[in-house]
Amino acid sequence: MAKKHIVIVGAGFGGMAAVKALKRADADVTLIDRTNHHLFQPLLYQVATAALSPSDIATASRALLRRQKNVTVIMGRVTGVDAKDGSVSVMNTPDIPFDYLVLATGAAYSFFGKDRWAADAPVLKSLADALAIRERLLGAFEWAESHADQQEISRMLTFVVIGGGPTGVELAGTIAELSRSTLARDFRHIDPASARIILFEAGPRLLSTFPERLSNYARTTLQKLGVEVRTGTPVDEIDGEGLAAGTERIETTNILWCAGTAARPAAEWLGAEPARNGAVKVLDDCSVLGHPNIFAIGDVSSFAGENGRPLAGLAPVAKQQGAYVGRLLKARIAGEPSPGPFRYRDFGTMAVIGRSRAVADLGWCQLTGFPAWLTWSLVHLMLLVDFRSRLMVYINWSWAWFTYGRGARLVTRAEHGVGPTSREPT
Amino acid sequence: MAKKHIVIVGAGFGGMAAVKALKRADADVTLIDRTNHHLFQPLLYQVATAALSPSDIATASRALLRRQKNVTVIMGRVTGVDAKDGSVSVMNTPDIPFDYLVLATGAAYSFFGKDRWAADAPVLKSLADALAIRERLLGAFEWAESHADQQEISRMLTFVVIGGGPTGVELAGTIAELSRSTLARDFRHIDPASARIILFEAGPRLLSTFPERLSNYARTTLQKLGVEVRTGTPVDEIDGEGLAAGTERIETTNILWCAGTAARPAAEWLGAEPARNGAVKVLDDCSVLGHPNIFAIGDVSSFAGENGRPLAGLAPVAKQQGAYVGRLLKARIAGEPSPGPFRYRDFGTMAVIGRSRAVADLGWCQLTGFPAWLTWSLVHLMLLVDFRSRLMVYINWSWAWFTYGRGARLVTRAEHGVGPTSREPT
Repeated sequence: MAKKHIVIVGAGFGGMAAVKALKRADADVTLIDRTNHHLFQPLLYQVATAALSPSDIATASRALLRRQKNVTVIMGRVTGVDAKDGSVSVMNTPDIPFDYLVLATGAAYSFFGKDRWAADAPVLKSLADALAIRERLLGAFEWAESHADQQEISRMLTFVVIGGGPTGVELAGTIAELSRSTLARDFRHIDPASARIILFEAGPRLLSTFPERLSNYARTTLQKLGVEVRTGTPVDEIDGEGLAAGTERIETTNILWCAGTAARPAAEWLGAEPARNGAVKVLDDCSVLGHPNIFAIGDVSSFAGENGRPLAGLAPVAKQQGAYVGRLLKARIAGEPSPGPFRYRDFGTMAVIGRSRAVADLGWCQLTGFPAWLTWSLVHLMLLVDFRSRLMVYINWSWAWFTYGRGARLVTRAEHGVGPTSREPT
Repeated sequence: MAKKHIVIVGAGFGGMAAVKALKRADADVTLIDRTNHHLFQPLLYQVATAALSPSDIATASRALLRRQKNVTVIMGRVTGVDAKDGSVSVMNTPDIPFDYLVLATGAAYSFFGKDRWAADAPVLKSLADALAIRERLLGAFEWAESHADQQEISRMLTFVVIGGGPTGVELAGTIAELSRSTLARDFRHIDPASARIILFEAGPRLLSTFPERLSNYARTTLQKLGVEVRTGTPVDEIDGEGLAAGTERIETTNILWCAGTAARPAAEWLGAEPARNGAVKVLDDCSVLGHPNIFAIGDVSSFAGENGRPLAGLAPVAKQQGAYVGRLLKARIAGEPSPGPFRYRDFGTMAVIGRSRAVADLGWCQLTGFPAWLTWSLVHLMLLVDFRSRLMVYINWSWAWFTYGRGARLVTRAEHGVGPTSREPT
């Protein structure tokens, strides 16, 4: 009898955990991802702000899985699933049949139906996104240095971050430090510290999933760093010239979108009824209703937690679900009893605000300031996927901590003029 | 009296050396470059082959010059020079007037009049070029792994390097090692070691500027690594499907161009008569005939050496000329006697062929094999521009040496299908 074939779509935290849990399974495993790497997304904002290089937080998936001989890694873009016949369609590649399918395709950002905003408010999801944002941030200061029109300069040096969740808070804090510390002494005509950084949040407070005390700490700390925080202020309109929110109109070309997320289109592929954010609703073993051989994990899935509310889109949820589904499939193929239903073990959440400043809600205690930052740093170093990444991130962080410098301040693609009106390539 | 204003175009080895030599000059200095960084070009092929990250060999120019208060750094693309009025045109930016001008704009690759080849045979000059080549190299193996058509697979796994100078030799050797060592155990369906690597050189031998013994060593070493070397074989035609050379037709989409160079259009800007490769002919103080206040250094200039032949386009030539012109201008502005004519001090040339293999012609001795490679490694580590780059390159090299791994194996942009017929984005 041929071995069972398990196809896993997505090499993020969920997919990678599932693959690793299948190490000793008597099955052939195929991992498909649109890129060739596993990305440590929690540090992606540091690539966008020139503190880290892409290779510090991303590693070729097939290099990570070199020794796991039952896995084939395929780089390709999945475009659909034939649940009935059991096959996955991949763009420009023959269909791939499966006995079991694990969907771990994650989430993208949602513009709440205003998709036209996407062109003027880039998101931060992939390495390519991070590099584009880095070019935009650094390019704005470069442009300002060679121009004289004060109005245009202040427009170029106004940075707006939309969304007061962890990513928005981290980005706003880091941009403030970039302008106040790293770049401060490098320019002759402009004062980088005069850059305006404005953080918009539609809800009443930052970090809404954290305890209120930590939200308040985040707000105060960001304000000390020079960030203008606008809570309770949904954005009404974004265009190529700026944005409107409440009674305010802000002229800028530097808008970063860190607001709502939407699951990638896996529910559509399966013809399954999606949850509110488009995610696939799953049963308590992470399988999709009506498809006992198809599982969805991480941000693409909607799993009802103990309080009945869906689990949040966090890396630990994806990792635990991936490991769970891997164990479940291994047992099922071996004819062993299945594990019980999936249960999420919550070890807490953290968000970093700036140099030596963070918040951590560990459930049994709440940390702020340096202790939170130290905890955050150590935990993230440990979670990095291999020794090489840990070493590189450790060196870069140490370097930045002592020198306030950032090693990856590169504008690699802008060989043309950078500026508010010059988007033409040459 | 206002201070004299010196404009330097190009932040490569020449321009940067000129800026640094003007540290104590009583003048305002403006450095203009199309990118925001100084790039250590001799190691660019290692970025293209995933051994190093861009930030390892490139550093923001304004960070390097932070403490030199008489320098303003401008990121912009120079489009012309008004020699009569003394001003430089920069795209999308007001003109910049100068009292003295130093052109250090370097060279681009030349396709010997066949400019249509450029689309199918990318060159390696900038970080953006290196990243595009990295995507193409790694993407070819990724594509092959998910396809079954043997003919298409061998087409995808055929890599052609055109030009047997140091860059061509280094690239061909490194691609061979990538396929034979780094990737060897990472694939399940294809054998990366079956990749064909072919190096074409129109002239009779590789490394034509080196002694013949070293050329022969390079050829033998490359062949041992699995590179097919074709000397005396000019390429007749390149198209989207492959290339024709002599009696041979090779089907491939992976062609890298490392052949002839052509100076960037500075001679045109000045209305000066160009040398054979388009470079600006300069007098023995590196100034341009008829323009005593305009200098050209490095690859964009043609300087008659002691034997009457123009100096080669090498980093040490550019650096020494930059330092010379900086000293000359400092003396002239201070009313001190000018230094004598520029003399190039030749410390030798080197080329690396692979892991622990290189050739070095130091004039008083010739090295091959491990001693040459060790010399090459130490010299290049020393020449890197700052401590951070040295540390990062050292760690990456050590890592690669012991593990045969490469840390920067990232396909960051190919979120669409990679393959011979799929160029459409999605």
